[in-house]
Amino acid sequence: MKKPWAGRFKEKTAKTVEIFTSSVNFDKRLWKYDIDGSTAHAKMLRKQKIISSKDAEAILNGLKKIEHEILKGKFKFSDDLEDIHMNIENALIKKIGAAGGKLHTARSRNDQIVLDLRLFLRDEIRKVQRLIQNFKGVLLSLAKKHINIAMPGYTHLQKAQPVLFSHYLLAYIEMFNRDMERLDECLKRVNVMPLGSCALAGTTLPIDRKYVARLLKFPAVSKNSIDTVSDRDFVIEFLSVSSVLMVHLSRISEELILWNSEEFGFIELPDSYSTGSSIMPQKKNPDVLELIRGKTGRVFGNLFSLLVVLKGLPLSYNRDLQEDKEPLFDTIDTVKGCLSIFIEMMPKISFNKAAMRKAAGQGFSTATDLAEYLVRKGVSFREAHRITGKIVSYCLAKKKTLADLDLREYKKFSNLINKDIFSFLTIEASINNKVSSGGTSKKIVLKNIAQLKTRKQK
Amino acid sequence: MKKPWAGRFKEKTAKTVEIFTSSVNFDKRLWKYDIDGSTAHAKMLRKQKIISSKDAEAILNGLKKIEHEILKGKFKFSDDLEDIHMNIENALIKKIGAAGGKLHTARSRNDQIVLDLRLFLRDEIRKVQRLIQNFKGVLLSLAKKHINIAMPGYTHLQKAQPVLFSHYLLAYIEMFNRDMERLDECLKRVNVMPLGSCALAGTTLPIDRKYVARLLKFPAVSKNSIDTVSDRDFVIEFLSVSSVLMVHLSRISEELILWNSEEFGFIELPDSYSTGSSIMPQKKNPDVLELIRGKTGRVFGNLFSLLVVLKGLPLSYNRDLQEDKEPLFDTIDTVKGCLSIFIEMMPKISFNKAAMRKAAGQGFSTATDLAEYLVRKGVSFREAHRITGKIVSYCLAKKKTLADLDLREYKKFSNLINKDIFSFLTIEASINNKVSSGGTSKKIVLKNIAQLKTRKQK
Amino acid sequence: MKKPWAGRFKEKTAKTVEIFTSSVNFDKRLWKYDIDGSTAHAKMLRKQKIISSKDAEAILNGLKKIEHEILKGKFKFSDDLEDIHMNIENALIKKIGAAGGKLHTARSRNDQIVLDLRLFLRDEIRKVQRLIQNFKGVLLSLAKKHINIAMPGYTHLQKAQPVLFSHYLLAYIEMFNRDMERLDECLKRVNVMPLGSCALAGTTLPIDRKYVARLLKFPAVSKNSIDTVSDRDFVIEFLSVSSVLMVHLSRISEELILWNSEEFGFIELPDSYSTGSSIMPQKKNPDVLELIRGKTGRVFGNLFSLLVVLKGLPLSYNRDLQEDKEPLFDTIDTVKGCLSIFIEMMPKISFNKAAMRKAAGQGFSTATDLAEYLVRKGVSFREAHRITGKIVSYCLAKKKTLADLDLREYKKFSNLINKDIFSFLTIEASINNKVSSGGTSKKIVLKNIAQLKTRKQK
Amino acid sequence: MKKPWAGRFKEKTAKTVEIFTSSVNFDKRLWKYDIDGSTAHAKMLRKQKIISSKDAEAILNGLKKIEHEILKGKFKFSDDLEDIHMNIENALIKKIGAAGGKLHTARSRNDQIVLDLRLFLRDEIRKVQRLIQNFKGVLLSLAKKHINIAMPGYTHLQKAQPVLFSHYLLAYIEMFNRDMERLDECLKRVNVMPLGSCALAGTTLPIDRKYVARLLKFPAVSKNSIDTVSDRDFVIEFLSVSSVLMVHLSRISEELILWNSEEFGFIELPDSYSTGSSIMPQKKNPDVLELIRGKTGRVFGNLFSLLVVLKGLPLSYNRDLQEDKEPLFDTIDTVKGCLSIFIEMMPKISFNKAAMRKAAGQGFSTATDLAEYLVRKGVSFREAHRITGKIVSYCLAKKKTLADLDLREYKKFSNLINKDIFSFLTIEASINNKVSSGGTSKKIVLKNIAQLKTRKQK
Repeated sequence: MKKPWAGRFKEKTAKTVEIFTSSVNFDKRLWKYDIDGSTAHAKMLRKQKIISSKDAEAILNGLKKIEHEILKGKFKFSDDLEDIHMNIENALIKKIGAAGGKLHTARSRNDQIVLDLRLFLRDEIRKVQRLIQNFKGVLLSLAKKHINIAMPGYTHLQKAQPVLFSHYLLAYIEMFNRDMERLDECLKRVNVMPLGSCALAGTTLPIDRKYVARLLKFPAVSKNSIDTVSDRDFVIEFLSVSSVLMVHLSRISEELILWNSEEFGFIELPDSYSTGSSIMPQKKNPDVLELIRGKTGRVFGNLFSLLVVLKGLPLSYNRDLQEDKEPLFDTIDTVKGCLSIFIEMMPKISFNKAAMRKAAGQGFSTATDLAEYLVRKGVSFREAHRITGKIVSYCLAKKKTLADLDLREYKKFSNLINKDIFSFLTIEASINNKVSSGGTSKKIVLKNIAQLKTRKQK
Repeated sequence: MKKPWAGRFKEKTAKTVEIFTSSVNFDKRLWKYDIDGSTAHAKMLRKQKIISSKDAEAILNGLKKIEHEILKGKFKFSDDLEDIHMNIENALIKKIGAAGGKLHTARSRNDQIVLDLRLFLRDEIRKVQRLIQNFKGVLLSLAKKHINIAMPGYTHLQKAQPVLFSHYLLAYIEMFNRDMERLDECLKRVNVMPLGSCALAGTTLPIDRKYVARLLKFPAVSKNSIDTVSDRDFVIEFLSVSSVLMVHLSRISEELILWNSEEFGFIELPDSYSTGSSIMPQKKNPDVLELIRGKTGRVFGNLFSLLVVLKGLPLSYNRDLQEDKEPLFDTIDTVKGCLSIFIEMMPKISFNKAAMRKAAGQGFSTATDLAEYLVRKGVSFREAHRITGKIVSYCLAKKKTLADLDLREYKKFSNLINKDIFSFLTIEASINNKVSSGGTSKKIVLKNIAQLKTRKQK
Repeated sequence: MKKPWAGRFKEKTAKTVEIFTSSVNFDKRLWKYDIDGSTAHAKMLRKQKIISSKDAEAILNGLKKIEHEILKGKFKFSDDLEDIHMNIENALIKKIGAAGGKLHTARSRNDQIVLDLRLFLRDEIRKVQRLIQNFKGVLLSLAKKHINIAMPGYTHLQKAQPVLFSHYLLAYIEMFNRDMERLDECLKRVNVMPLGSCALAGTTLPIDRKYVARLLKFPAVSKNSIDTVSDRDFVIEFLSVSSVLMVHLSRISEELILWNSEEFGFIELPDSYSTGSSIMPQKKNPDVLELIRGKTGRVFGNLFSLLVVLKGLPLSYNRDLQEDKEPLFDTIDTVKGCLSIFIEMMPKISFNKAAMRKAAGQGFSTATDLAEYLVRKGVSFREAHRITGKIVSYCLAKKKTLADLDLREYKKFSNLINKDIFSFLTIEASINNKVSSGGTSKKIVLKNIAQLKTRKQK
Repeated sequence: MKKPWAGRFKEKTAKTVEIFTSSVNFDKRLWKYDIDGSTAHAKMLRKQKIISSKDAEAILNGLKKIEHEILKGKFKFSDDLEDIHMNIENALIKKIGAAGGKLHTARSRNDQIVLDLRLFLRDEIRKVQRLIQNFKGVLLSLAKKHINIAMPGYTHLQKAQPVLFSHYLLAYIEMFNRDMERLDECLKRVNVMPLGSCALAGTTLPIDRKYVARLLKFPAVSKNSIDTVSDRDFVIEFLSVSSVLMVHLSRISEELILWNSEEFGFIELPDSYSTGSSIMPQKKNPDVLELIRGKTGRVFGNLFSLLVVLKGLPLSYNRDLQEDKEPLFDTIDTVKGCLSIFIEMMPKISFNKAAMRKAAGQGFSTATDLAEYLVRKGVSFREAHRITGKIVSYCLAKKKTLADLDLREYKKFSNLINKDIFSFLTIEASINNKVSSGGTSKKIVLKNIAQLKTRKQK
């Protein structure tokens, strides 16, 4: 196959070089966007009379046929045609002859690949956002459904204070709300029309970039041709946002793995979302969650990979930039895969309400309430904290819980403690007294659920 | 020194543990924000009658005195007081007695540290933004001043097409515009008031979080107490945005290092911004630029470091999170340092207009114009590209440039070439014919400069 | 202060540049190695008659005085002298006059800094190795002492099979044995004498590099002067080895944090190695372990940082390389700090033998033994696995354990099961029947302990 | 397809879970090693009479047939069989019936996958080493062939001193020598037999692990069963070593890209190893080198990805570990691909001796020789450096080179300069006077070439 740029070359490209430099085995994934971009470009060339209506018709028909062939699986992608652009242009010329050679007027692969990538990523960001919305919906339903489950909140993996399980689920939703915002903002910077920057300097031909942007539904046109072909910020940004999203998924996975252990016993994964062991017949393992946690590493790796590619790279286009696609594709697949399986699995998990409630009461989890009780009676917080610490210490020595103490014992530590202490230190009181904004009381949690539902419907 | 939490403990903390876990040697940097936060918190406790006016006065006065001492360098920070919070609280109690023990009412170090960090980062983001604006101003002035310098645009470090040097500078500005946007958006998520989340569950005391937010000029209050103390997204996000900013600075540095080489010879660094060699007496080295390029690695490392810390961490607060501060501080210092030195140095660089112009005409840099010339005469682009390739090949064999060819030679390749080709292929024509939006013609570049100036004044 | 390289410069270095490029605030840590290297270099110059004996004496005395001053804390390091080398050379010249100017003969800072760094890292690797040996010793003592503690081995954080706690500890020792090997090998490549490569090309003066190597106890001399000043492989390698070491420490930390949770309850951390909460009076937190786990991120970040610096850097010395020191120093401090605190804390942890033993018997942990029992009776493993799965399923439905079943119930699943099954499925039998090499039986574990002790004494 | 572990499960695995958790689409690459491992395991089971000779024969024949089918491309891998192990075991049972169910006796997938991975990586390391040796051979031939090419050595991308081009090539060889050493040492830790660790605890069956090791040519057997199934150090280590190797390849690529620029003009890439532009007809781009430089990012990303997976992971096997394979495979393919193309391309590069020599004499590259000349005359180095700086400064003002000065001019700076200076400051003298060990003189370089050839033949 003769290279489109063979004019100035004396020797053929080495076969090994064709294979080493070819990107078509992965960038063919962009075929639809490449055709959409070429279609808009051809229409613009026609409108601007840079090519004739007849040639434009031929090109547009040819592109439609190629689209059809690819959809039918009949299109043959070839390594020696380097990339998706040349595979399609070459097929076009074969189909419609010389007119096909006019499509690349006022265009370079340098701006064409950025166009494809931006169109592709725009679609994919929206898909990721839909999945996040779905997952948020699942979490919100669970929060509503399980509004009466109390569980221990942890710091340092030590029981800290009783909280509503629904409050926990809403914490996850907050994380995803931030992810949604970041994706919105990233999308804004993805959604910029690059075509017409050509190799790096623009063109002498009378193109209309705004028209192309309109056809392809881009709200903005890139401002500087050199920057346009050099820039991969928008890919890095998506990989960063995805890394944070994976941090969130990994944290939830870690918690579910812990809760699913026999030691915690808060949840049971459905058989259909667990796997067994080839040697140990009793095992039922949370493999899905472990894989999600593990896949966090690959998304971080993808982010770093592209940062390294870009660091210190002189302007404008350099072939190093070809290394942007595989980490991007892998990240998109990973993120979508993890969200999808979470959406499916989450509603099928059994929550062991009794175990969670029991644990909520352990570990002196209402000691802070006791301290705040003393504060309400006028003790300074530091003193209240000290007194409570002494009471806990006493309980540990006597192997008692706070609920086991009688008033006489309490009085030994502070005379301000009265019998209202007993109703104050129940799990329910502990939770429902946390009426501060953002707190874990049922009242506040229900209010937040209501707000989230409204927000969601927008 | 007795620990504030010593109540329940039987043994003293090991000295080695105090040193290993202490954060005061770095988090003391947050002292001002810690005091500001405590001041607002005390005012709220007073307003809500959780503490008496008298106690509140004592606290507020005490905090002011401590602020004064720190500013004067008279405050002694101590490792065995663990962190900035305990250092200040302890000093307060020493100063005003028991009333000081009331400041920590309805507050935990878990929400307090996030408050300090958010206040700090909010200020620092604005400082970074001011530096970027300054640097953009410097670049814009240079672009205006040097509007007539032509230079080669490169792809693959090979001369591609002539461009205006000002167009190059505007490409940098586009990068920084994106950085500004990302910082704005990051700031939005930093600028959320966390206090009142307490340990992780909120409090039973009747606090007013919105009042604290108002006092500290936060436009929003965090929504979920568990998320609030577990979340470090806002730090990761700042480190990501900074990593992209460093990518930009490293790319500019790389280009200036290249241009400053004897081989390129486009610029000369001022003596005052260069350094010499301890052994080679003739050397004048671009150390500043190399260091900026090198420091990109450390910012990436900081981002990676925190992603690793957060990955798979169960909610809510874990001590691992203490590892968020040093990478953040180091990143802020690095980014500000690199921008500051760039702002100073950039206007002092000499640009060798003659060398840049000469290079702009080398490497057949107007070959694309020749191809577009043929397109204007009705040749398909692919054919025009092929013909031009042949002409270049001919020139290489004859050791000629495009300008050296006479019309007869051109005609051998295409009869459509006429004598207007000679004025079409000058550097000036090549540049000024690129009137497509975003292109390198003087007209478009001046228009962009004008727009950027307006944008800047807003 | 006049720069040693000022000869060719017309302007003074900008103050901001001095500060931005100065490394003395961190490379002063290398002072001792810088003096040792200079001492050896001066002796060589004397021996080779490149400088006179008198000048050499003056230099050697001057260096000794400087060493003394630094040790006494009387030496003033100064930013405008750039780095440790110039600080010391300048002090020398001040002390002994013109003769001091002869020390830098046949030497450049390019090879001098590599010498300092190699001398420093050689010492530090040995210190890290001593700490690892100590920690291994601690683990080995514990393994010997607690040889009778049974505990559950986990896969997927689900109980899998009973193991000896000592077997677990020996697993950690295996990790550290690999770390020791890697450090040995890294040290081999660190331990190469670079001086005499000068700026990058060697020197025309008749130096004796082998003599310097002998004086400084280097077994080898670097082979290529360009490579010598460009190479930082040895630092990257140390950071890689340290990253793996931190992986190990983070895994142990994670396990101890889990075991220390109320839910697992296998261990209790000593009060003196735990910390409390500023708000929750009952809390006793494993902060030390969390910090070690968190610090893993910073060591990975340091590795990544330096890889980024080196990527695509042209030979030979570039100032970017100055960025090698801080990540190295921070890694050494982190690794040594984490090992030291582990060595102290580990022997003070209480192991709850009863809880561990009880857990060892839960979760059908001997199901695999049951399957192997059936294999011994001639059943194929797949069939044995299937039968055992059915038995486990039956137990789950009946809420029984394997030990609860009577022979009649067993017979329903396989007639081959006889009453010897009961002694076969005890925790002790399960453990002690694992006599395969590397297995968890007491016999094998004791053999491994014995071997490790012998190895250690070598 | 029924799962081998279905016994204890009530519901079928969700189809989406099968796809999400399946590894067969990538781990099928290990098929040969899986069969080799199973073959050795079956022989051992027979020898130890754990299975009958007849069953063993059936298994061994079955495995051979499966091997044959895979080689012929007739084997159908299936996602619902999870991984390579189950795909092969299932085919075996289909072929030979119940006897096939005996192969997995005394084995778990936990130790089996580590066996496969170690066998695979052992082979691949040797392949990578062969490629490095080949590349070293290419470099050595070039060094011998081009022994008379002088070129500038650079520091800070500024000409520093003249060096032999061969000396440069030998610098690269030194890097690869270290890579070879690291691969040797990594191989030592890869080359350890893990089978017999089973799930994590060993087995109660009388296996012979040393026999399996002998059959599979492993010099060592792993020591602790828990560590064996938890450990992926050997993969991380290979990824670290590969990262450093890629640093080396990226540095060489960067230099060749620079040298291939019109500005440097030291080399010309062959047409067959260059590519053109779709828009700019004159372009001939070093895409291969840019891709190699870019691919460095992906190898770093792979390393980080796995470090993240392992960080804080509790023992023993967790499904996160499945994420070890893709980064490993991708790294191996990248490293082998980059080395292979370099081996092919390097000998076809044209070196422009005249341009290199001319550049070697520019930039006052012999100024250090002038300083050393003065040292030989008794001037202290610092003073010599200062005088030379002044001379360079004078030349810059007069637009002269050192060679342009006459003796009278030299004398103005130092009376010690005599006419022997002229022969001392030629490029040839500068190079050939660097006879210090490791220096760039032809004598030393030839000696190093001779030594490297001898080393190579071993």
